[in-house]
Amino acid sequence: MQKGAILVLSGPSGAGKSTIINAASDEIGEYYFSISTTTRKPRVGEEHGVDYFFVSKENFEEDIKAGNFLEYAQVHGNYYGTSLKPVREALEEGKLVIFDIDVQGHRLVRAKMNDITTSAFITPPTLEALETRLRARCTDDESVIVKRIENAKSEIRAVGEYDFTIINDTVELAAKQFVIVAKAARLKQSAEDEEKFITQWIGK
Amino acid sequence: MQKGAILVLSGPSGAGKSTIINAASDEIGEYYFSISTTTRKPRVGEEHGVDYFFVSKENFEEDIKAGNFLEYAQVHGNYYGTSLKPVREALEEGKLVIFDIDVQGHRLVRAKMNDITTSAFITPPTLEALETRLRARCTDDESVIVKRIENAKSEIRAVGEYDFTIINDTVELAAKQFVIVAKAARLKQSAEDEEKFITQWIGK
Repeated sequence: MQKGAILVLSGPSGAGKSTIINAASDEIGEYYFSISTTTRKPRVGEEHGVDYFFVSKENFEEDIKAGNFLEYAQVHGNYYGTSLKPVREALEEGKLVIFDIDVQGHRLVRAKMNDITTSAFITPPTLEALETRLRARCTDDESVIVKRIENAKSEIRAVGEYDFTIINDTVELAAKQFVIVAKAARLKQSAEDEEKFITQWIGK
Repeated sequence: MQKGAILVLSGPSGAGKSTIINAASDEIGEYYFSISTTTRKPRVGEEHGVDYFFVSKENFEEDIKAGNFLEYAQVHGNYYGTSLKPVREALEEGKLVIFDIDVQGHRLVRAKMNDITTSAFITPPTLEALETRLRARCTDDESVIVKRIENAKSEIRAVGEYDFTIINDTVELAAKQFVIVAKAARLKQSAEDEEKFITQWIGK
């Protein structure tokens, strides 16, 4: 009866989300990692269809008007969003759809698909740990790091809106918790399926 | 930071709840199975402190007035309830507290301790399967079986209020799902702990 389910992950850039997903991927079964669509220009090394779907502003705005986004937002003049189509297809195939989106995106997914959504906020244990990680990556210059830390401070206040909090102290433990969360997400039934089950059960 | 958590199980008598818990018990870690308090007389073979805490009607009503119950109800003239004290103690010790209570009891636990509560509705795959199981147990006479089936039909409508539905088709699969649910329940953080974490994180 189960078709597919959604797992939303949020948390500061530098929380270690991809590392945790990779460490857990053997144990969580088949999943579709949702790729965002954006109007910002690709950075060196970024690929269309892998890192993002890169589209023009005109295309993005047409898709907004056509209701083709599950969620979207404008950040520093660029659009970022999640197209509904690949998500619907993956759900139809019974897959677990994993989103890496921000607090605002989580709210929009909840508003649209609450009954099949599970969510986890992934965070480093402390602000200091986040700073250390961001500097160790050497991918951002100082002004970007400062901005990411300010963002993190504001996003962490939304922890209570999430089903689970995963504190990434060690990757091993965080990955173990992530496996539990992903398996629990798969058990979630849609309201529609529950209705069908009740009707069948009482039925005839 | 996690102290303890609550897992509420509901579902018709004959759904196989105890069988599933027993089959899963090696994998779910230490837990406290909440024992209900009742004013009904013990049946043959039932023990005080094992099956129920058996108390007088006067004692039960005093405890109601003293606010000592997490939830309680009157069924066919007898009181049934969950005392707060052993639950609080088990939570303080960081244990997972498992309740086997009905739909109404679930609502009361949610109302009081929603932030640390996870719930699962356990049900046989069909009404026919439930009937077969109830008759195979040979513990109830026909009028009780009829009453249990009527109860089941009414309780199953509340499936949507639960975090998870476990359909007990085979004990093996149901126990596997139960392990996931129990582990997920343990990951739940209290609102208070989340507040503390946020304050520490943004802190100083």
